[in-house]
Amino acid sequence: MCGIIGYTGTRQAAGLLIKGLASLEYRGYDSAGVAIAGGDSKDINIYKCVGKVANLREKVENAAPKGTCGIGHTRWATHGGVTDVNAHPHRVGKVTVTHNGIIENFKELIKAYNLADKLVSGTDTEVACAVINNFYNETENIEEALVKAVDEFKGTYSFTVLVEDEPGAIYAVRNVSPVVVAKGEDGCVLASDITALTPFSKEYFVLPEETVLKLTKDEITVKDFNGNEVEPEYCEIDWDVNAASKNGYPFFMEKEIAEQPKAIKDTIEARITDDIVDFSKDGIPEEVFKNFQRLYFIGCGTAMHSGLVGKSLLQQFAGAYSNVEIASEFIYDNPVLDENTLVIAISQSGETIDTLEAVKMAKKMKATTISIINVRESSIAKASDYVIYTNAGPEIAVASTKAYSVQVAVMYLLTVQIAMINGKMTLEEGKAFIKKLRKIPDVVEEAVKNRETIHNISRKIIEAKDLFMLGRGLDYSAILEGSLKLKEISYIHSEAYSSGEIKHGTIALITQDTPVIAVVTQNKLASKELSNAIEVRSRGAKVILFVKDGIKLENEEEWYEVVRLRDVSDEFMIFPVTVALQLLAYYTSLDKGLDVDKPRNLAKVVTVE
Amino acid sequence: MCGIIGYTGTRQAAGLLIKGLASLEYRGYDSAGVAIAGGDSKDINIYKCVGKVANLREKVENAAPKGTCGIGHTRWATHGGVTDVNAHPHRVGKVTVTHNGIIENFKELIKAYNLADKLVSGTDTEVACAVINNFYNETENIEEALVKAVDEFKGTYSFTVLVEDEPGAIYAVRNVSPVVVAKGEDGCVLASDITALTPFSKEYFVLPEETVLKLTKDEITVKDFNGNEVEPEYCEIDWDVNAASKNGYPFFMEKEIAEQPKAIKDTIEARITDDIVDFSKDGIPEEVFKNFQRLYFIGCGTAMHSGLVGKSLLQQFAGAYSNVEIASEFIYDNPVLDENTLVIAISQSGETIDTLEAVKMAKKMKATTISIINVRESSIAKASDYVIYTNAGPEIAVASTKAYSVQVAVMYLLTVQIAMINGKMTLEEGKAFIKKLRKIPDVVEEAVKNRETIHNISRKIIEAKDLFMLGRGLDYSAILEGSLKLKEISYIHSEAYSSGEIKHGTIALITQDTPVIAVVTQNKLASKELSNAIEVRSRGAKVILFVKDGIKLENEEEWYEVVRLRDVSDEFMIFPVTVALQLLAYYTSLDKGLDVDKPRNLAKVVTVE
Repeated sequence: MCGIIGYTGTRQAAGLLIKGLASLEYRGYDSAGVAIAGGDSKDINIYKCVGKVANLREKVENAAPKGTCGIGHTRWATHGGVTDVNAHPHRVGKVTVTHNGIIENFKELIKAYNLADKLVSGTDTEVACAVINNFYNETENIEEALVKAVDEFKGTYSFTVLVEDEPGAIYAVRNVSPVVVAKGEDGCVLASDITALTPFSKEYFVLPEETVLKLTKDEITVKDFNGNEVEPEYCEIDWDVNAASKNGYPFFMEKEIAEQPKAIKDTIEARITDDIVDFSKDGIPEEVFKNFQRLYFIGCGTAMHSGLVGKSLLQQFAGAYSNVEIASEFIYDNPVLDENTLVIAISQSGETIDTLEAVKMAKKMKATTISIINVRESSIAKASDYVIYTNAGPEIAVASTKAYSVQVAVMYLLTVQIAMINGKMTLEEGKAFIKKLRKIPDVVEEAVKNRETIHNISRKIIEAKDLFMLGRGLDYSAILEGSLKLKEISYIHSEAYSSGEIKHGTIALITQDTPVIAVVTQNKLASKELSNAIEVRSRGAKVILFVKDGIKLENEEEWYEVVRLRDVSDEFMIFPVTVALQLLAYYTSLDKGLDVDKPRNLAKVVTVE
Repeated sequence: MCGIIGYTGTRQAAGLLIKGLASLEYRGYDSAGVAIAGGDSKDINIYKCVGKVANLREKVENAAPKGTCGIGHTRWATHGGVTDVNAHPHRVGKVTVTHNGIIENFKELIKAYNLADKLVSGTDTEVACAVINNFYNETENIEEALVKAVDEFKGTYSFTVLVEDEPGAIYAVRNVSPVVVAKGEDGCVLASDITALTPFSKEYFVLPEETVLKLTKDEITVKDFNGNEVEPEYCEIDWDVNAASKNGYPFFMEKEIAEQPKAIKDTIEARITDDIVDFSKDGIPEEVFKNFQRLYFIGCGTAMHSGLVGKSLLQQFAGAYSNVEIASEFIYDNPVLDENTLVIAISQSGETIDTLEAVKMAKKMKATTISIINVRESSIAKASDYVIYTNAGPEIAVASTKAYSVQVAVMYLLTVQIAMINGKMTLEEGKAFIKKLRKIPDVVEEAVKNRETIHNISRKIIEAKDLFMLGRGLDYSAILEGSLKLKEISYIHSEAYSSGEIKHGTIALITQDTPVIAVVTQNKLASKELSNAIEVRSRGAKVILFVKDGIKLENEEEWYEVVRLRDVSDEFMIFPVTVALQLLAYYTSLDKGLDVDKPRNLAKVVTVE
């Protein structure tokens, strides 16, 4: 979770590090800090404080530290509260570190190394730093010390390390949490992900596990744990750097909502040949979609919600039975995995730790793994047998929008592929389905334009503390995601419920004026969905209907609000519904004056379990 | 949802009907009413009012209506708000009816029969009554009128009917909503379920669909829609009548929590022969558990939660892949059903409409169906190929406790059966597992005794408006149920989250002092569960830990509260956790002065979709 960065070169480090941290801030913004070395003296100066990178910038600009080498960190707190002293970097003895990950056995380490009286913070990181320093004192060789220290650690980590005796060098070691490295014209740089590397180079490599990295101003060295040099595998950054700026939108989220038509189009069209689905460009042989007895969709949060759409579509159009599993549950729940199992893992970043573990486990048990990923060359992409890259471009806002839509779009492609290859859909039917799918970018474009209607609705819920969303079938999948979005950025305790389930308990929470959003877009389910909405209305709820244009309402004036959505076939309605609920969350957050892109407590990439 | 009752005989009807309604009140208590006929004049007198049966009793006692024939109703509002005029019975012309169910096409009927100006209530029932009256005016024969009327209705119903011209007769017709009928020494009686019949007879029958019932003071007639007489199939009530009283407890829920050791024991022991599982007494051949490729657990609310336990156990001990589905979603989501599919449907009442529909659909598609049911001869039991009756005895409190525990107990029996027959568990392993299971009643007994500890915890959350529960694996299944319980009766907006998922959005809702209940009882997951709990604590949450005795805590004082639960093997911890969370919900509701047994807006048996 946290973001790390390091630079050593010919330029002054402080400003570069601060700029890099700002681009990593979506990974955490509880506190930020830098350590600067390579100045006139051997001193390493640390500057750190609670809050966003902007706070740190002010502090650093005032101090104007000199030095051409340094490391930086933006924190998402796990162990130890959000305080100045718990901010990174941490220093013990001659060693200064930043850390992304969790050292689970830090309490045992405190005992084993008798550190109880020596620590100033409540973090696992300071403990790790003390252990590294301990071995450094013993060996007087930081590379050896790192190898010995990480052998003691249970958990996940990427560490960047400065040592007092080598002012121009940065060391790093990682096991699960990512580190990417690049060499620019005037120095070498490392970071948690490539968004921070783009100003330096178009080429980078991912630091392999069980290696130690050393950066100096003009050299990069990677050694395995036995001290043998390793040749890193470079790859190219294929994102347009401009894509990571706001282009005039007040928040990345709004920009990313607006980018959905293009993102969906780019994702779909890349897999269509002669009007039909074609995954051969992704290198996936057709047999993969035929020879499975069990299918699991795996993901966390929003990504998992896209799996629900996949499950529903596969049942309806391919007669295929599947399970959608929360990755963190899946890995400990003894799933049935063998060579007849297909695992489809979904993650925007490709670094979600639970999903990565799930893929590794599935592979170990001989299952076939396909991942649906937005970030190229990410850990999950590398760990999977096959990858379907979504073409959403960089997503910066913590609350996912376009990355979800393209994951959902891939579900439609997979459905046609699996249905056709298993004889559940003819070529004509497949082409007709794809034809409809190709119109979705326009449908989404129109939904995005409808923003003022939704903005007006958001004003009706802005003061709500609790809210419920109801829907059935694909509407239920849509509200699970819509409700999560609202929670994440507006801090309203929204809960999505299958319309048919609310009577089995949760309706007890409905009282006079409880806001309820009922989504009614499925022709065959509409009468049931409306019945359930009437039930909560008869308990006093203020029901806002999101209803498909083609569905008739009697006594429309009895509803608190009615939002009409463009009429497309039931199975595609999830797209306009999704956009409407994204905009609802966005405007609610915006009008509450919240930081839409960087909600409280959240990080974009979840690399701790 | 609603409860209906009718009596005609030699005694005064009013008092008997009121008493019967009181025993049906768990089906709905928005309003109640009776219609009394068979007095000195031909008049039918209706008394009805908002609120519980106690309100109605006062009203009726004051009026002291004379008459030996009458019908009564206790309402759970669906269409039309909770008002006196919307209470049942409804009268149009010569016809007076009560109704359980929903007539979905009532708006179309208003147009078709030109009723718009003639209705006084906002209910679908009054519309149905008007249609019946219309046909009665045409045919002058109420049986014919009913057959013609229900042919016009789309939806679910049981109607009881009085007509002005036959003061001593009650008619009834039903399609999905249940009607049971009995003949006592001094009259004939019908009701929504057998709890209201027990004072009259130990024998009863379920009114078949597509028949019309006629009761007079000494005769019961059932005719099919062509007018041919049908012989009803009588069965015996096997519940001890005393079981439906509170035995000195302030609320049924507390009594039912305390009855769990016996209920579990009775349910388990009935399926054990020579120390191993034996479903032959339930008439289920062993092949049923071998010859399936797909397995669905189906249920609603609490019952569905017991299916989650089944899924988890089957994966761990039988290597079997299964899906747990919300019944109301399942029936419209194109599930893959064929002769290789096993569907296990779970319902306390055996009348849950969505689950019933799911079973019917599964059977139609040639799947094998087993139901796990508490009420004998209920609709789902009858519709299923096989039934496993849980021996919990009558459950009266709306919030299910003992019925859930016995459903969960059945999951352990099924797991051993399926694991052994598929070669995943040896006889010795099976016996060892069963031996542990047989100790669970004692574990539960001890958990029930721990009530004061839990009562103290409930005082810490009593003022909470929102609350989150966290857990992984079986702890996650347990909190889904525990959270629902808390919602239902304490009206706290509690939401259960898989510990690993909260970081993917919902943690944004955690602020200073947000109450969080973290359940940590699984040895292999404990360190992860604690890590996630520390994460929310570091955001300011007041975390109450429910932790297994054997799991060590460092710095126990850092937690807001710690509740220790007796240490049994991981896979059985769900029982003590369940009891603790039941007691937590119970005491919170009790101390808030709420009606524990009859929470707002809820009904015990959900017979509308």
